Amino acid sequence: MTETLGIVGGGQLGRMLALAAARLDVRVVVLDPTPNAPAAQVSNEQIVAAYDDVSALADLASRCDAITYEFENVPAAGLEALESGGKLRPGRAALAVSQDRLTEKNFFVSVGLDPAPFRQADSHADIVAAASELHQGRSDGEVIVKTRRLGYDGKGQARVTVDQLESPTAQDTEDLHEYLGGVPLVVEKLVPFDYEISVIGARGLDGSVALYDPARNTHEDGILATSTAPSGADGDVVVQARQATTDLLHGLDYVGVMGVEFFVNPDGSLVVNEFAPRVHNSGHWTEAACLCSQFEQHVRAVTGRPLGNPRRHSNAEMRNLLGDPLPTATDMTSQGDWMVHLYGKGEARPGRKMGHATRLTGPA
Amino acid sequence: MTETLGIVGGGQLGRMLALAAARLDVRVVVLDPTPNAPAAQVSNEQIVAAYDDVSALADLASRCDAITYEFENVPAAGLEALESGGKLRPGRAALAVSQDRLTEKNFFVSVGLDPAPFRQADSHADIVAAASELHQGRSDGEVIVKTRRLGYDGKGQARVTVDQLESPTAQDTEDLHEYLGGVPLVVEKLVPFDYEISVIGARGLDGSVALYDPARNTHEDGILATSTAPSGADGDVVVQARQATTDLLHGLDYVGVMGVEFFVNPDGSLVVNEFAPRVHNSGHWTEAACLCSQFEQHVRAVTGRPLGNPRRHSNAEMRNLLGDPLPTATDMTSQGDWMVHLYGKGEARPGRKMGHATRLTGPA
Repeated sequence: MTETLGIVGGGQLGRMLALAAARLDVRVVVLDPTPNAPAAQVSNEQIVAAYDDVSALADLASRCDAITYEFENVPAAGLEALESGGKLRPGRAALAVSQDRLTEKNFFVSVGLDPAPFRQADSHADIVAAASELHQGRSDGEVIVKTRRLGYDGKGQARVTVDQLESPTAQDTEDLHEYLGGVPLVVEKLVPFDYEISVIGARGLDGSVALYDPARNTHEDGILATSTAPSGADGDVVVQARQATTDLLHGLDYVGVMGVEFFVNPDGSLVVNEFAPRVHNSGHWTEAACLCSQFEQHVRAVTGRPLGNPRRHSNAEMRNLLGDPLPTATDMTSQGDWMVHLYGKGEARPGRKMGHATRLTGPA
Repeated sequence: MTETLGIVGGGQLGRMLALAAARLDVRVVVLDPTPNAPAAQVSNEQIVAAYDDVSALADLASRCDAITYEFENVPAAGLEALESGGKLRPGRAALAVSQDRLTEKNFFVSVGLDPAPFRQADSHADIVAAASELHQGRSDGEVIVKTRRLGYDGKGQARVTVDQLESPTAQDTEDLHEYLGGVPLVVEKLVPFDYEISVIGARGLDGSVALYDPARNTHEDGILATSTAPSGADGDVVVQARQATTDLLHGLDYVGVMGVEFFVNPDGSLVVNEFAPRVHNSGHWTEAACLCSQFEQHVRAVTGRPLGNPRRHSNAEMRNLLGDPLPTATDMTSQGDWMVHLYGKGEARPGRKMGHATRLTGPA
């Protein structure tokens, strides 16, 4: 019954997937360009190769019964090799949608969800026009300008007012298109939401769906700082968020775990922000507070196993541990009331995710 | 802060220690004679060598900041190499006591605990005399005759009545000493206990102690079948069991996790059966029902970290999954309410421990 799972990407998410796979007696082969990557340290094998090395990816596919990935920016060149054997889960549609913010937002609309109002923008003039249009000319209206591809943790984006964009003296916004790399962009209207929640959802090979309770997220410097479950959201908000996640899972004919971020408006309506076609930082609390973590759930789904029970036995608070230094990790360890999870990254750099810690705050 | 832990023995207990070590960013080197042993599959390195290969053990010691083991029958030849650097935890005293049932029982007595009445026996005549003496001549009194060394899971032992031993026609007990290998033995009076409980206890480098709640154990064919926490024992029984475990931990100047088995008599008094100087099968439920499992606790203790909180957030029932076949594993996986843990053993044989599964039965 032992089988082999390939994971493209050997960082912390791959590592946590590999640890979960071990408990299910699933062998793991990691593909990552860095020898002894965090995931490879706890896996059966590593293929040391670039993510666009087509022959290495084909080698991975030939050795494995199923292939997944820990990050959504798998180069298109490599995808062909992985997809051809029918072993790639989640499949190419989910990757294509998540790799491009414009495609993603259009997809949200197509399945009946509400993203923040947005416009495509391929030049500075486009940005100015979009911002003005989204705010109907109100000069203090704010927008977030984002690159369509390769953004994460607040990178590849800028927040400006219509006023700033239109003033010729505002040096730093004079050519925002150029500042963001001259690449295709999307302009979003800033939504004055109350708070952010996220739902970790899973869909099995058989189409069954399992959803974890929403968590409430806080960020610092654009990076997730804490996730807390339960989220404190009203029951109606929870129902909407669960339904939206279910719609996305079915709409993409998805197999695996996804994380979906929502903004909750003061009136209780939801704005869908983005989804990630993988296990998600805001779901790390499931490892401590659920019998089946998001990592085990993803392994179950992509290897064709029945989904696990996503029930939360305890309430939980997860905090990211960013380096350098890690002032809190030792304290948390010594307090003993936190489950500390460190990622085996050799070098701590400011803002680098070095680990996370979860404490239980009571029975669910 | 990354450091390296050596584990002698690459079976399932070593594997679960390695998985827990990974979360603490502790590198693991496993020493086991079988290439690609279960623990090695999720460890940074394996040294393929016999347990009495002194130079390999010295090599392990030189590469690691601390050394532990997953089984107590480490050959004496190898111990010297490991002990010399002061890195072996638990230390040699705990191993010496646990390797010999007679030494173990005498040690129990020395720290004020009550084992079942026992006698040393080095011949069949000794066995007969001991049985008769322990039962004061009552012919239907039962004893358990055990080899002093190398017994586990009901192996190396036999249960007989005084009558059977004294009857010259009882072929299978005619020379029990020879049947058990002609090795030194110990004869125990069979205690008519109500049920068995075990306590998983830990002691840190700083002498601090952390105890998990007792679990109630059931066996089939001499092998642990289930462990359930809480045990249902009276508060007074729990207090006695906790105190006895604490006395053992301090009495051995112990560092690490130990498992201690007790028989609970109908009058609520306790008989200490045996202890294991390592993580224990009857503590596997801690992985699902506690924030800090016995595996993490052991890694914390032997690497000099502060102990984790042993609090149980949920009630739990653990079942061993024995092969071949594994009829229940698939069912349990598909029900999704069990956390299934498989050990990566290639070959399932009848009675072989292939995994375990734990379900949560409610908040603690």
